[in-house]
Amino acid sequence: MTLPDTLAGRTVAVLGGTGPQGRGLARRFAAAGIPVVIGSRSAERATDTANELAAATGGEVTGADNAAAAAAGDLVVVAVPWDGHGELLKSLSGELAGKVVVDCVNPLGFDKQGAYALPVEEGSAAQQAEALLPDSTVIGAFHNVSAVLLDDPAVDSVDTDVLVLGDVREATDLVQALAETIPGVRGVYGGRLRNTHQVEAFTANLISVNRRYKAHSGLRITDV
Amino acid sequence: MTLPDTLAGRTVAVLGGTGPQGRGLARRFAAAGIPVVIGSRSAERATDTANELAAATGGEVTGADNAAAAAAGDLVVVAVPWDGHGELLKSLSGELAGKVVVDCVNPLGFDKQGAYALPVEEGSAAQQAEALLPDSTVIGAFHNVSAVLLDDPAVDSVDTDVLVLGDVREATDLVQALAETIPGVRGVYGGRLRNTHQVEAFTANLISVNRRYKAHSGLRITDV
Repeated sequence: MTLPDTLAGRTVAVLGGTGPQGRGLARRFAAAGIPVVIGSRSAERATDTANELAAATGGEVTGADNAAAAAAGDLVVVAVPWDGHGELLKSLSGELAGKVVVDCVNPLGFDKQGAYALPVEEGSAAQQAEALLPDSTVIGAFHNVSAVLLDDPAVDSVDTDVLVLGDVREATDLVQALAETIPGVRGVYGGRLRNTHQVEAFTANLISVNRRYKAHSGLRITDV
Repeated sequence: MTLPDTLAGRTVAVLGGTGPQGRGLARRFAAAGIPVVIGSRSAERATDTANELAAATGGEVTGADNAAAAAAGDLVVVAVPWDGHGELLKSLSGELAGKVVVDCVNPLGFDKQGAYALPVEEGSAAQQAEALLPDSTVIGAFHNVSAVLLDDPAVDSVDTDVLVLGDVREATDLVQALAETIPGVRGVYGGRLRNTHQVEAFTANLISVNRRYKAHSGLRITDV
């Protein structure tokens, strides 16, 4: 496919790109022809994953530590574990200044009854990012898309909408276009950043659905 | 259509049945052949709505004040405004004892930027109901279905899944069956009651979607 104009020539960094969600997203972006920089705490592990994804997709994928990846990306996707999310972003506010930062982190806890939403002082992971990155444009997206499906090269098309939340129209449009580089996915505007909490937390419901129905569930918005 | 065995001979009461969501649900249940009792603060307004829906659907619909409706229902749907939700349920704990209570209330605020989720001390409207009704089985459902589509007799089929949340399998199964009496709707298990907050709050996102796309949006769960 041809990339939309807004994405042409832009590099996407994926912080936490060696974890399941980040790696799955990096794979799909690379396969779509977007230059990708994998970020990780360990530059070595990032490079290993990058080499693997470059070979698998034929795309342009490099690895670096999270700070160097953040500096290299025109758009930066944050797919790190919730534990450590705030600390990492605080340390990268300089590298991320002036950029669109796409937060896809779900603050969830797990016990024997399954997953549940953790309380977040700022309201949501995305709002925490916004508070820590005053010079970036923070967008919430990719919360509910199955990492298993994203990272499986045998899955040709991922049957889900990606809800994109934020307060700057140009940035939500850009991230909707980024989502649509993944075959099967539609990017749908999902509201302002203050309404991101429930989209993050909804991942707990999809985990319950997955257990009950033995599925890799996603969601579609109807009448849109 | 033939009602499933679990619903045969059971009366559904809809508290707040003169409001848009309650009235829309009552219309669909009556059209499906379920005996419905509309509850309202005013028995007279309830009876007016009941007569109108009975004439429109050919179904068995009566009206009463909320307490008499709660006493008359085998299943009781709570579709009252969030403001007053707790006070009403507290006053009806006797009438609702031993019954399945289906809470579909969304605690939302509105300002010039649109809708947003209100904080709820118990976590969600459904959990508030559970706390106030220790002798009832509380289920969360019907949060995201468009009142406009439900209450429009020209709409043959409503294109949405209804997420059903609760901790008692027999009750979630029953409410999934109730949801599926509405043409087009599928009842999908959506997790335990503790994960209801985000489903209630997600209605704020659908309101944002409706504004952006001029739609009456709903949601479908994929791979299920």
